Formats: sequence, C-alpha cells, structure tokens
Amino acid sequence: MKHKNQQQAKVTQQLKYLLKNIADFDEKELEKICSCFKFKSIKKNTVLLSEGEVCTEFYYIQKGCLRTYFLTRLGNEKTRFVTFDCSIGTALTSFISQKPSFEFIDVLEDTDLFAINYTDFYNLNKELIHWKDFYQRILEMAYSFQNRSFENLVTLTAKQRFEQVMNTNPILIQRLSNKVLASYLDITQETLSRIKSK
Amino acid sequence: MKHKNQQQAKVTQQLKYLLKNIADFDEKELEKICSCFKFKSIKKNTVLLSEGEVCTEFYYIQKGCLRTYFLTRLGNEKTRFVTFDCSIGTALTSFISQKPSFEFIDVLEDTDLFAINYTDFYNLNKELIHWKDFYQRILEMAYSFQNRSFENLVTLTAKQRFEQVMNTNPILIQRLSNKVLASYLDITQETLSRIKSK
Repeated sequence: MKHKNQQQAKVTQQLKYLLKNIADFDEKELEKICSCFKFKSIKKNTVLLSEGEVCTEFYYIQKGCLRTYFLTRLGNEKTRFVTFDCSIGTALTSFISQKPSFEFIDVLEDTDLFAINYTDFYNLNKELIHWKDFYQRILEMAYSFQNRSFENLVTLTAKQRFEQVMNTNPILIQRLSNKVLASYLDITQETLSRIKSK
Repeated sequence: MKHKNQQQAKVTQQLKYLLKNIADFDEKELEKICSCFKFKSIKKNTVLLSEGEVCTEFYYIQKGCLRTYFLTRLGNEKTRFVTFDCSIGTALTSFISQKPSFEFIDVLEDTDLFAINYTDFYNLNKELIHWKDFYQRILEMAYSFQNRSFENLVTLTAKQRFEQVMNTNPILIQRLSNKVLASYLDITQETLSRIKSK
C-alpha cells in the first residue's frame, strides 16, 4: 500500500510537470486537477473504447501505450494516433461531442494511466481559466497533428512517410509491431518490411 | 459612403450574431471584437494565401466563398475546406503556429469578408474569457470536421461521399464547380459526372 501511494505521488508529480509545461497553473490549481485524475493499471490488449460507445474519459499515460484506430471499408485497422509514456490521449471527437465513437482505443502494452471523466474535465473548463488555456493548446496540437497526417498521406510516398516518422517520432518504429506501424503509415506490412530492409 | 457605412453596420450585426451563437459575449465585448475585424471586398479567383506564406488572418465571410486546399504528390489540388456566407475560416495550422503554410486559401466567388489579424486575435484570447470559449469551440469543430473528413475518405465509397455531402451540406453541390467539388470529394471529375448523372 505504501509502495502504491509512493508510486501515485511520483506520477502526480509527472502529471503536474506536464500540465505546467502547457499552461500557467499554480499549485492550488494543480492539486485540484490531479484530484480529478483516477489511477488505473491496464493489461496489454485491453480495449478501452469500442466503435459505437461514447468516450467519457481523457487519459494521462504514465507508462505504456494507447492507440486510437478505426476500421476501413475493407475491415482493416487504420491507426490514427499512438501515445506513449508521460503524454495524453483520448478519442477526442467522441469525447467532445459525447456521441458514439467511430474510433476504438486499445492498449498496446501493459499501461499505467490516470483518467479524468468528461464531467470533471468540463467542470475544470468552467472553473479554471488556465484549464481553458491547457485544453486550447491540446486542441491546437491535435488539429495541427491531424492535418499534417492527412497532408502526409496525400503528398508523401510510403518511403517518405516512413522516413519522416524515423526522423520525428522514432519511438513508433522502436515500440510498435509491424502490423500497427504499417496501419499507422497506411501501407501494407509487406511494403513496410521492404522499406525497413533497405 | 453612407451606403458603405450602412452595409458595414449590417455586417457587424451578422458577425455579432454568429459570435453570440458560439460564446456568451456581452455587448461591450462584441463591440471590442468587431472593432478588430477589418472589412475587405475581394474579387473571385484571388489567392489570399499561398503555400510557404504565413497565415496571419482569420476570416468572417459575410458573402461569398473561401476555400483552403493543398497540392498532392501529382500536383493536383486537394480541397480541404470550403466556407460560404455568414461563416468563418482560415488556414488554421499555419495561423496557430505562425509558420509557413502548406495550404493555399483562394476566393471562389466575389467575396465580402471581415479579417482579424493574428496579434489582435491572440490579444482577445488573453483579455476575454469568452473569446477563449469561442476559440475553443472553433477548434473543437475544426478538429471534429477534419477527423470525419479523414474517416470518410478511408471508409466511404465515392458515391457514399457524394451522397453524404448531398444530405448534410448540399450548398457544396449547388455552388462549387465540378473541378473543386471533385477535389473536395477526392474523386476524378469523370467519376463525379457519372455519379451526378444517376
């Protein structure tokens, strides 16, 4: 129990660090925010959200890996976003609208995370001006990332997309399976193997 | 001159109406915001922003049509977003980052619009809590729209994409040329003609 409390205190420090990096929170605000995040330890391959369910949680991943994906016309997985240690993620479109999700969220590694629910999230948004700044920055980053992904898909070749990930986000190549990495890059596993071997 | 002033007063009322629909502004805030927007009358086919330029303006279109697009690997236009009368738009990724744009903005019809520059936009964001709410809602809508576009591209057939636009946003079919509509739907003009004729 003592060990678990120590671990949670450490993670709270990490979460505070991330929050302060994004917006100008004071210590009292950070305490209030951290009290809204609940710790969860989740086994690899757990599905946190399925298509058709409403996404009611926003995650801070302490250690591990979360992925959002959806199914293509042919039933293949299209990986949209992957998030690792000390970062945040959710199925944002469903979380915003509180309508059924088109995306899945699954857990690709044993993962320790902190979750804040929709009600607490939007209460913070009403109460704390710095939370508005935090959420605004998250939305700006999410929009810009999503736009670049779309542009990359339309303007870069498979090899160029792989090289871009290698240069800007190599953790994806180090930690994802070939299957997931291929679906992130929107190429077949065969093409990925061929590119990797060169 | 009197006519122009009357026209601007009318447009200011429309802009206030749109702003109040999105966030809970009071009259004093609306006056302050509207004083930051400058009127421009722009001829059809004008390019407001080219690839490589930094997007420094955010637009309220009173009457007309703005489009954002980028060039594919093969040099074809990919239309990302089209906005008509009484709505807003810009090249958001470049506007957020103040880095060179990947996108173009052009004007598809003779257009009357109001522009606010980046400095004024972010000053309002510092000064007015309701502007933060307004901008948050814009980002939420932009993210959700962009995500749905990407999902539609991967999960719907050309015919289904056309039908979806016909059901949810028929103004695109009524007012865009076949060339632009095809590039919005990510299909060839031949395919679009075939679908339309059925």
